[in-house]
Amino acid sequence: MDDRELLATVTAVLGPDAVADDCAVIACGSDVLVVSTDMLHETTDFPAGMTDPQIGWMSVAVTLSDIAAMGAAPEAVLVAAGLDRWQRLAGILEGAQACADAYGCRIVGGDTDAHAELTIVTTGIGRVSPEHLVRRSGARAGDLVCLVGTPGRAQAGLLGYTCHRTALIEPLPRVREGIALGRAGVSAMMDVSDGLVLSLHDLNEACGCGFSVTSGAIPLPEGVEPERGREMALSGGGDFGLLFTCAPERFPVKGVEARVIGRVTVEKTVTIDGRPAPHRGYHHTW
Amino acid sequence: MDDRELLATVTAVLGPDAVADDCAVIACGSDVLVVSTDMLHETTDFPAGMTDPQIGWMSVAVTLSDIAAMGAAPEAVLVAAGLDRWQRLAGILEGAQACADAYGCRIVGGDTDAHAELTIVTTGIGRVSPEHLVRRSGARAGDLVCLVGTPGRAQAGLLGYTCHRTALIEPLPRVREGIALGRAGVSAMMDVSDGLVLSLHDLNEACGCGFSVTSGAIPLPEGVEPERGREMALSGGGDFGLLFTCAPERFPVKGVEARVIGRVTVEKTVTIDGRPAPHRGYHHTW
Repeated sequence: MDDRELLATVTAVLGPDAVADDCAVIACGSDVLVVSTDMLHETTDFPAGMTDPQIGWMSVAVTLSDIAAMGAAPEAVLVAAGLDRWQRLAGILEGAQACADAYGCRIVGGDTDAHAELTIVTTGIGRVSPEHLVRRSGARAGDLVCLVGTPGRAQAGLLGYTCHRTALIEPLPRVREGIALGRAGVSAMMDVSDGLVLSLHDLNEACGCGFSVTSGAIPLPEGVEPERGREMALSGGGDFGLLFTCAPERFPVKGVEARVIGRVTVEKTVTIDGRPAPHRGYHHTW
Repeated sequence: MDDRELLATVTAVLGPDAVADDCAVIACGSDVLVVSTDMLHETTDFPAGMTDPQIGWMSVAVTLSDIAAMGAAPEAVLVAAGLDRWQRLAGILEGAQACADAYGCRIVGGDTDAHAELTIVTTGIGRVSPEHLVRRSGARAGDLVCLVGTPGRAQAGLLGYTCHRTALIEPLPRVREGIALGRAGVSAMMDVSDGLVLSLHDLNEACGCGFSVTSGAIPLPEGVEPERGREMALSGGGDFGLLFTCAPERFPVKGVEARVIGRVTVEKTVTIDGRPAPHRGYHHTW
């Protein structure tokens, strides 16, 4: 049993819509709101040595990344903090507030509780006009498969490559890029926080198309030997890049630095260099 | 250091708006959305013997109660579940879904994680037209102080009065009443889940008025000796009644069973039977 198998339980009770995208979508006048919630806790999500402000920053950044992946602009965040020591709250909120400020949104509320293990759940709300909303299901055969950011950097940071430690502990959600890609009419998008290959499989399930990716086109984390860097780029989690698909004539999108790494195919499989890609990436195993 | 002192830390970093009401408020076309998040965990929030569906129900009910306290109709809920055993997820979601169904809203998304202690964070989103939105700050001297529900029942259930156990473990948020009171133009409202007296102090801080309450007017939990029942009604937490204030000419509100328990006063103190009321209720002490 791993996270993705657990989703079958969620789908059985709540139906497929509850897990269809990075965010849920709510009607809001002439706009739509997108909403996402993320639970992080110390043992598995905050690498040793992180400061409380960095923990607060990361907690907000993960939910802003989900909002960006829908093409939306973040507007409000709620922070529920289960604290092992109440003295940590101020530092955590300062970091959370700094991240919200950096991306033009507000922390509007939350909850506090005592907890044996520091646990932070952030809920983010973003806004987008319906024609610029991007879902996972929109990819079509013939579209380009594109990537914003260098995958594998957070994993490299976790494994001791100090030049990548900032990517691990002070991640930068791709809010500006997500909004620009939504406005440019890309066909599908999600963030790669569970790893690039798993994200390709998620898009594959959502849209019913296949994905043919060329590993040589994927940017690799600097300073890592190529074979190891390639493995990190394909399977490492914790990066906040954006994976998207778009019709060839819409690429490149002005102001967005992105690489073409493959094509959407009629055949419904995910391949890397022509071989089936294993479901490898950030799995929690139960 | 207790929960309410901890709020001073929150206010210092985020400003007073982040703790001003049961929910945050977001503009949404001609409506407003209200949003609230609540963190519950097994040790302190789920009494022994609760089933997983009851845990799911309660987790959704707490956030629907916050939405009701703003006069809003619940629309969407997200559920983040930190699971000690993955096998619990289905039961928890079934209960969560049952509560959402009962109050006409949907579970639209969430997150799952492994956790040493079962931890559930629900985020609820409600909708209301701006003229029917009710905040804590609106009470004015001369208003009636009113109560929906019998406070102290959850506490009685916790202390072994079996006729009140359902009130404890399958709480019913006052959604219908909250909406009706908002439409009727009541001046201030909040739920009493932290206890009646603490809620009076919270309203007091929000509006700058005082509250003069007569203990004999407060309904007491049945089957409990009066002195003990009175203490439970004043200080017991876990009830989902609504405390509201309204101009005398607006009371009673059609279809809402409520009791007048006092008056809003110019003098900025909270008194019960003329004596200052201590800050007693549901505090978590750190």
